[in-house]
Amino acid sequence: MKILVTGAAGMIGRKFCEALVKRRNIGSRSVVRLTMADAIKPAALVGAPFDVSTLSADISDPGIAESFVADRPEIIYHLAAVVSGEAEADFDKGYRVNLTGTHRLFEAVRQAGYQPRIVFASSIAVFGTPFPETIREDYAFAPLTSYGTQKAIGELLLADFSRRDFFDGIGIRFPTICVRPGKPNKAASGFFSNIIREPLKGEPAVLPVSEDVRHWFASPRAAVDFLFHAGALDLGQLGSRRTLNMPGLSATVGEMIASLKDVAGADCAKLIRRQPDPAIQKMVDGWPRRLDASRAETLGFHAEKSFEEIVHHHIEDESAG
Amino acid sequence: MKILVTGAAGMIGRKFCEALVKRRNIGSRSVVRLTMADAIKPAALVGAPFDVSTLSADISDPGIAESFVADRPEIIYHLAAVVSGEAEADFDKGYRVNLTGTHRLFEAVRQAGYQPRIVFASSIAVFGTPFPETIREDYAFAPLTSYGTQKAIGELLLADFSRRDFFDGIGIRFPTICVRPGKPNKAASGFFSNIIREPLKGEPAVLPVSEDVRHWFASPRAAVDFLFHAGALDLGQLGSRRTLNMPGLSATVGEMIASLKDVAGADCAKLIRRQPDPAIQKMVDGWPRRLDASRAETLGFHAEKSFEEIVHHHIEDESAG
Repeated sequence: MKILVTGAAGMIGRKFCEALVKRRNIGSRSVVRLTMADAIKPAALVGAPFDVSTLSADISDPGIAESFVADRPEIIYHLAAVVSGEAEADFDKGYRVNLTGTHRLFEAVRQAGYQPRIVFASSIAVFGTPFPETIREDYAFAPLTSYGTQKAIGELLLADFSRRDFFDGIGIRFPTICVRPGKPNKAASGFFSNIIREPLKGEPAVLPVSEDVRHWFASPRAAVDFLFHAGALDLGQLGSRRTLNMPGLSATVGEMIASLKDVAGADCAKLIRRQPDPAIQKMVDGWPRRLDASRAETLGFHAEKSFEEIVHHHIEDESAG
Repeated sequence: MKILVTGAAGMIGRKFCEALVKRRNIGSRSVVRLTMADAIKPAALVGAPFDVSTLSADISDPGIAESFVADRPEIIYHLAAVVSGEAEADFDKGYRVNLTGTHRLFEAVRQAGYQPRIVFASSIAVFGTPFPETIREDYAFAPLTSYGTQKAIGELLLADFSRRDFFDGIGIRFPTICVRPGKPNKAASGFFSNIIREPLKGEPAVLPVSEDVRHWFASPRAAVDFLFHAGALDLGQLGSRRTLNMPGLSATVGEMIASLKDVAGADCAKLIRRQPDPAIQKMVDGWPRRLDASRAETLGFHAEKSFEEIVHHHIEDESAG
């Protein structure tokens, strides 16, 4: 089976490709070729038991999406996106990549005239306040960012192209991924990962919001598992509603810090410095606190059940690197 | 005040332009110029007390949207669309006009660098089964047609461009418009109008569904009033959710026929011939039956309260023509 991953140089795309090297299969089907596509060149994969090719091009440029699907991959993981902060700062780039790029990829598949599976990475950013404490899957799109708008449009295109049998699509609405490995970044949501990752390394981290802030999380490991499961699932079960709220864990910042203490000790948690930032607090107050992911759970998607588990998975998965 | 109407040759667009000639104002502001744009050339308006120009071009062609907004109209009524049946039959044309055309219009306004009001005609086709008996405004988009998908995307773009202050947008989700004047057409929803309009002219009409079918209606007169009200409303009241379920009337086919009898006599209703069509019945069973339009009502939008009223308005408005 041939696999295409767009956004393969991103954090989740990279982890998924590395996991493919180890698992070799998606469901019961073995991978024979992996195409890693991204706007920046993905680093080489070591030890893959299948062909790997890398493509470095902008999916929104004419002809590029066609070249991505030229070998007719049976599963396309469309993870490529300009992220939230950048789509907000660069309006044109966000729409070009996240809307035009996605539309061009879907059109390229339609024009190629075969029916692969497309797994589309969406986001809880399709929702915006006011919303109920627990957001059901049939709650209205009301994105408060251009990124969320573009992801919502991608979900709509995915459903319509699937309804027309141009491909077989499944959309997965990722929770906020925590703990992100690597350096602290400037995303407004970055502190959620920073306050766990940095103290575990013995480094200080800044907490800009109050401890009662509640949000919806899953680990990078759970995110990779979502992608494997979405690639193997019988999509006949989805009906016309092609995108699922992914399972996650609803936790407050206070609970996150308590988990860090439990796992790594009270001294570790002392590296977190409270430095309230009203702008970040206001933004985060508009973010989802809990989603109803019961449909995805019924279909076999799973995530962590406690924040301690998330911390342990982070330590296990990142200590080798 | 300068006004642009796209889709000005369509049924609602035409009626709105004719009403502008009579009313001369939108809210308290008088119209000084009207641009009627459409893919087909709009017929001349008689007796307008303001400048009228007509433009005949495809809004999805490069440069056309820019030419539509060249005189910087203060209100843009974006009614142009490939209708439901055609967008389903011609996938490319539907996406080109309804998605690319709408996106290009919004971009043209953004590039022009001024902040007009845009009134966007959306549709209850953004919803699809399964849904609750009464569909709240915060219910999920789940269109079952490409047309509904394209209208939902238009709503998302309208909200995001408005949030970014590129223009001040309001979307209105039209009920099924009934009674449509003119000849019977081949739209699946056409029979709703046919079974009233044709018997009133002494002509037979075919009813392809059972009398317990319930649907959501407003008259052409109500639709025109929605457009006037949307042009004058203080949009500061909308917040980030820019599109409103328009008021309408939930009626069964049986209730429609009873109204026809009340207004025009039992013999008139005998011109309706039952000829069940399982394909149309199935399609119609997936259509909304009732919407919660309380937000729009609070903001001053109104529609008919009984189907008799709709029949009377049809007779009053169409007898002159």
